[in-house]
Amino acid sequence: MAGNSFGQLFRITTFGESHGEAIGVIIDGCPAQLDVDLDYIQGELDKRKPGQSKITTQRKESDTVKILSGVFEGKTTGTPIAMLIPNEDQRSKDYTHNVDVFRPSHADYTYQTKYGIRDHRGGGRSSARETAARVAAGALAKLLLKTQGIEIVAHVSSVGRINSPNITITTADEFIAEREKNIVRCADPATAEEMIAYIDSIRKQGDTVGGKVSCHIINCPVGLGEPVFDKLHADLGKAMLSINAVHGFEYGSGFAGSEMRGSEHNDIFLPKSDESGVKTITNFSGGIQGGISNGMPIEFKVAFKPVATIMHAQATIDSKGNAAEISGKGRHDPCVVPRAVPIVEAMAALVLADHWLRNRNSILPK
Amino acid sequence: MAGNSFGQLFRITTFGESHGEAIGVIIDGCPAQLDVDLDYIQGELDKRKPGQSKITTQRKESDTVKILSGVFEGKTTGTPIAMLIPNEDQRSKDYTHNVDVFRPSHADYTYQTKYGIRDHRGGGRSSARETAARVAAGALAKLLLKTQGIEIVAHVSSVGRINSPNITITTADEFIAEREKNIVRCADPATAEEMIAYIDSIRKQGDTVGGKVSCHIINCPVGLGEPVFDKLHADLGKAMLSINAVHGFEYGSGFAGSEMRGSEHNDIFLPKSDESGVKTITNFSGGIQGGISNGMPIEFKVAFKPVATIMHAQATIDSKGNAAEISGKGRHDPCVVPRAVPIVEAMAALVLADHWLRNRNSILPK
Amino acid sequence: MAGNSFGQLFRITTFGESHGEAIGVIIDGCPAQLDVDLDYIQGELDKRKPGQSKITTQRKESDTVKILSGVFEGKTTGTPIAMLIPNEDQRSKDYTHNVDVFRPSHADYTYQTKYGIRDHRGGGRSSARETAARVAAGALAKLLLKTQGIEIVAHVSSVGRINSPNITITTADEFIAEREKNIVRCADPATAEEMIAYIDSIRKQGDTVGGKVSCHIINCPVGLGEPVFDKLHADLGKAMLSINAVHGFEYGSGFAGSEMRGSEHNDIFLPKSDESGVKTITNFSGGIQGGISNGMPIEFKVAFKPVATIMHAQATIDSKGNAAEISGKGRHDPCVVPRAVPIVEAMAALVLADHWLRNRNSILPK
Amino acid sequence: MAGNSFGQLFRITTFGESHGEAIGVIIDGCPAQLDVDLDYIQGELDKRKPGQSKITTQRKESDTVKILSGVFEGKTTGTPIAMLIPNEDQRSKDYTHNVDVFRPSHADYTYQTKYGIRDHRGGGRSSARETAARVAAGALAKLLLKTQGIEIVAHVSSVGRINSPNITITTADEFIAEREKNIVRCADPATAEEMIAYIDSIRKQGDTVGGKVSCHIINCPVGLGEPVFDKLHADLGKAMLSINAVHGFEYGSGFAGSEMRGSEHNDIFLPKSDESGVKTITNFSGGIQGGISNGMPIEFKVAFKPVATIMHAQATIDSKGNAAEISGKGRHDPCVVPRAVPIVEAMAALVLADHWLRNRNSILPK
Repeated sequence: MAGNSFGQLFRITTFGESHGEAIGVIIDGCPAQLDVDLDYIQGELDKRKPGQSKITTQRKESDTVKILSGVFEGKTTGTPIAMLIPNEDQRSKDYTHNVDVFRPSHADYTYQTKYGIRDHRGGGRSSARETAARVAAGALAKLLLKTQGIEIVAHVSSVGRINSPNITITTADEFIAEREKNIVRCADPATAEEMIAYIDSIRKQGDTVGGKVSCHIINCPVGLGEPVFDKLHADLGKAMLSINAVHGFEYGSGFAGSEMRGSEHNDIFLPKSDESGVKTITNFSGGIQGGISNGMPIEFKVAFKPVATIMHAQATIDSKGNAAEISGKGRHDPCVVPRAVPIVEAMAALVLADHWLRNRNSILPK
Repeated sequence: MAGNSFGQLFRITTFGESHGEAIGVIIDGCPAQLDVDLDYIQGELDKRKPGQSKITTQRKESDTVKILSGVFEGKTTGTPIAMLIPNEDQRSKDYTHNVDVFRPSHADYTYQTKYGIRDHRGGGRSSARETAARVAAGALAKLLLKTQGIEIVAHVSSVGRINSPNITITTADEFIAEREKNIVRCADPATAEEMIAYIDSIRKQGDTVGGKVSCHIINCPVGLGEPVFDKLHADLGKAMLSINAVHGFEYGSGFAGSEMRGSEHNDIFLPKSDESGVKTITNFSGGIQGGISNGMPIEFKVAFKPVATIMHAQATIDSKGNAAEISGKGRHDPCVVPRAVPIVEAMAALVLADHWLRNRNSILPK
Repeated sequence: MAGNSFGQLFRITTFGESHGEAIGVIIDGCPAQLDVDLDYIQGELDKRKPGQSKITTQRKESDTVKILSGVFEGKTTGTPIAMLIPNEDQRSKDYTHNVDVFRPSHADYTYQTKYGIRDHRGGGRSSARETAARVAAGALAKLLLKTQGIEIVAHVSSVGRINSPNITITTADEFIAEREKNIVRCADPATAEEMIAYIDSIRKQGDTVGGKVSCHIINCPVGLGEPVFDKLHADLGKAMLSINAVHGFEYGSGFAGSEMRGSEHNDIFLPKSDESGVKTITNFSGGIQGGISNGMPIEFKVAFKPVATIMHAQATIDSKGNAAEISGKGRHDPCVVPRAVPIVEAMAALVLADHWLRNRNSILPK
Repeated sequence: MAGNSFGQLFRITTFGESHGEAIGVIIDGCPAQLDVDLDYIQGELDKRKPGQSKITTQRKESDTVKILSGVFEGKTTGTPIAMLIPNEDQRSKDYTHNVDVFRPSHADYTYQTKYGIRDHRGGGRSSARETAARVAAGALAKLLLKTQGIEIVAHVSSVGRINSPNITITTADEFIAEREKNIVRCADPATAEEMIAYIDSIRKQGDTVGGKVSCHIINCPVGLGEPVFDKLHADLGKAMLSINAVHGFEYGSGFAGSEMRGSEHNDIFLPKSDESGVKTITNFSGGIQGGISNGMPIEFKVAFKPVATIMHAQATIDSKGNAAEISGKGRHDPCVVPRAVPIVEAMAALVLADHWLRNRNSILPK
């Protein structure tokens, strides 16, 4: 109810502040007998961790995850899985300047007003550090989905006004391999180079820039998504919008679809020639019809605003409402999207795992 | 769990198929002693009902709502409020043609596959008729919010590529009065005329077109929204994406914000000169920071795809996967956005009422 | 959240006041393709309805149920099932005497204080009439469970100090047939006669008396119940305690078990000689170990206090706290347990159906 | 959904196995600005910890709790509070004997069958060790309730057939002081002595015995409890029945009430002479009417079965269903009730804190 849980059957609850002792997550509802590949989970966290490259924050944290419960002899047991990620690099003094001053376009003012108290160190609970717990839980969800052949892949499709061309995905592994060849995590090498140069110049100006992440879900079976409120894209949308800095979500034809006509937008079914399931000529539906997956690739896009912490002096107010000035200190990302890719994938995996479990009761078994 | 409930504290559950006996909704969690203005609720339903004008479907239903429980002598009693809307105009025979054929970009195929059975008449549960129940419940939520001064207003900001200029909202009542002067529900009269002419031409071609609805929430107090998953904009996003035909959601700077720099995107706080609360110079945050309302107007936009039912012959498949042809029959909307305005407002009201109740426990009372 | 819903996956929400227009229930989460036997559902309601015999209230209501949604051509479709039971015999004037007076041991005072308003007619929402909606929903749950061979049977095991001997159950049908031979619904004919005579004498005195209902669940598979909070007996206990007038719940050895030693209480496993599952010599565990069904019959007992409405003058207070006098009017039950039998079964069925669905995700499918 | 969470607004999720690295709990929904007295929380855990006296298990664990998040400068911040209790004394080898053998009346068989895998060491997740996490969370709930003057006190009212007389409670502190004077936690000194001698003799025989805990909630305001399913006593009942070894729950008149007549059972209201609220002459309602607290003391009783682990050889079966023999090893409680007292109080506190928060939205604020 207080908003720190997500999912219905595959349900996670996260905890922890950026400069407290640790952050973590409990996963309740993972079926028993899933093989838990801890290296895979750590690998996902490594894609999100700070200090990866010159275009991310230079803060250093290993983000090493530890499983406290729910796994026995390498397998899930059906009991809650607790994962802990200790906070290592807690330069709290970087944040003494914002005890009494509200940083513009941050959550300082709203947390302080809502709760009358806040852990001001590094954003506390509102810090994007919380998303490490999501990535850890999402990695487990991915392992669950992989047993069913479902794969989730995302990449950076835009940085500022630089846009990647559409990528044809052959296999998930190949797509990821291509994407991981560059530090901006764009699957198109030429665009990636351009993006990196641009972010680097933005960084040198002490400024930040926004971007977009595109996500594809491959081999999703037909039937996932629960009408009428828990439509698959509605839950994907909520999942994405709950990520720090996200300001927009669209799937399939998205915003562009609102400018189209029905006669061009309708996805025409192809006659089935074999048992491989139904296909449509176009995929403006983004793999989801009536809120339920239709077997085509699920496709959506997530828009991130520019990081609010910039290295310039900005006018602001203090906790009494008086004029003040603030300037970013510490080590921050000039652009959030390269590190957001594993977060988008993780949140998508959590939605899919949940809906896959939910859909198992759609029809009365014989 | 099966997806027909929405909200946590102000919680609704809808039921009913488009061609069954009735649709309806139960609202659980509305505080006692709220004055229930049934005329207001019916008035909201009238804005959604079919047959309003030449640019909506010509189907006729009065959509008369009846309250079965939870209201005593004009006030809520704290017990569940059941509202029933009988289905009147059930020309089921209009739908005999799609028993065994899947309409393109509809939910026929996904429902049939997910459940192995479906009420094929008029889309059954997947019909947008279900949203009438949402509008009825949302009207009650609006009455609750009005006791706190919170107002929600939406209008059609785009039809196809025709876009309304931004509207400065003085008061909710004036905005609504202006919007209701035309049948497309755009608050800018000149744009409205253009939109109406365009929809009418589309209708004559037997085609359909998409559009966008913009929504503004005025006088929202600071503090609504629950970190980290139930951020206010995440719940608004899910609410909007759960409406039939919606393919995109953005708030504040939205997708355009992803192209901006931090130095231009940050909303600078103005020093408080009085008790009226904090203000920012710009509102790229859309009234929400860190997932929590900051007291500025909440602003978001919703993209609707074109209606899938068109009056042209289209290739499709039957339930065995064989090639078939289908052509829209019956009475359908050429463009859904004029009737979507009250639905967007209703869903927003449900989110706000829920979060307003949730926020009442944020701080321990003395 | 407001307490009118029950269950997680097989979830019901009830609504309605005793003297409003109707009561009803929405069932969300029933899998598709279940055959809906409306006669069976009505038959269950008939066992609860008033006016059945000389030892129940003489109020007359047919309690005819109508299905508004979720069923198509005799089968569930996976969409929410709404059931409506109109209120027929609304002698509201029987209740004008308690507008301003609080009936002792009723819910008048607590509802009035909690909500500041109440529908005083016949107890309004606090009336046991609400349980008719539970019986209707429970009947559907029973139909679901029957497809898996699971049967739920209850009977009146005590009225006041008159106790039935333990009954050996051969089949559910035989047990029910025996129980239905008498109006008190005790499966032991000799005890039944005694109980009936006793209730009749109590009724003539204008008084009421309590009693107990024993319930048996047969053919329950191993594995139902979710540790650690949603133990099967914990959810059964909550279900029973939520029935009007229930003051106690015990399963297996129950309260008597608290006086036993471990060496006599432990249920010793019998070696398996075939595939029919594990058996224990005794069943002090009541078919549940560690909160999970173990395949033995599930057995529990429910204690009902005497009905609070008696035909004697009683001292009480009015809404201002002043001394007043009240005397039962209208038509009331001298003993609630004969009509409580189908309610106990219904609530047990709702718990079992829910846990049966939940358990289907315990182990990762291959 | 998987059963490891409890509560709606004050919601806890526990994790951990008895012989894993740690157990713990996340509390989500505690309002901000509550003073967190860590010594008080640790003190409650100390009442539950093993090795307290000669009549409890001799296992030694300090059960030291650590708060990882949600508390800043001694106060709650409104964010999730994670508490961790490391496992210290993990003599796993004590449990190697039950890898392949099912202990009678334990959860070995049901866990193994439900999940196909189990952490067999010391019962794993089914161990009563999990209740330490509940006590920690319940202590925080008590601190919240204390700010409202609500006090919860329990004591051992029966061991085997030895029953304490009813205790008149003057203040919570005095009651607890009296109870803590003896190692069995019975507030009646003479009965306590008898109980201790009895448990000691049972222990020497290598046997175990059951007992009962009585609980009283003092200064509970009118209005807590949500009709119709989440009645206050229904949620208390579920809370108690979810504690390991509990087989029965009753409140107010309980099972004895089922033998009474309405004319003797009804609680007659006393005219109000002042502002101190309504009182009733008797309290057979146990402080709850219609599922809602009425301002009188809330009173209930919980029945615990004898501990299943005894030091005798017992017949049983192995995982293949073959006959086997087992004899308790390790260090176990001869009677669970002395250590159950803080658990009963903790679970009651969690229910009350949750319902106190829920009730704050019963009436629309002006």
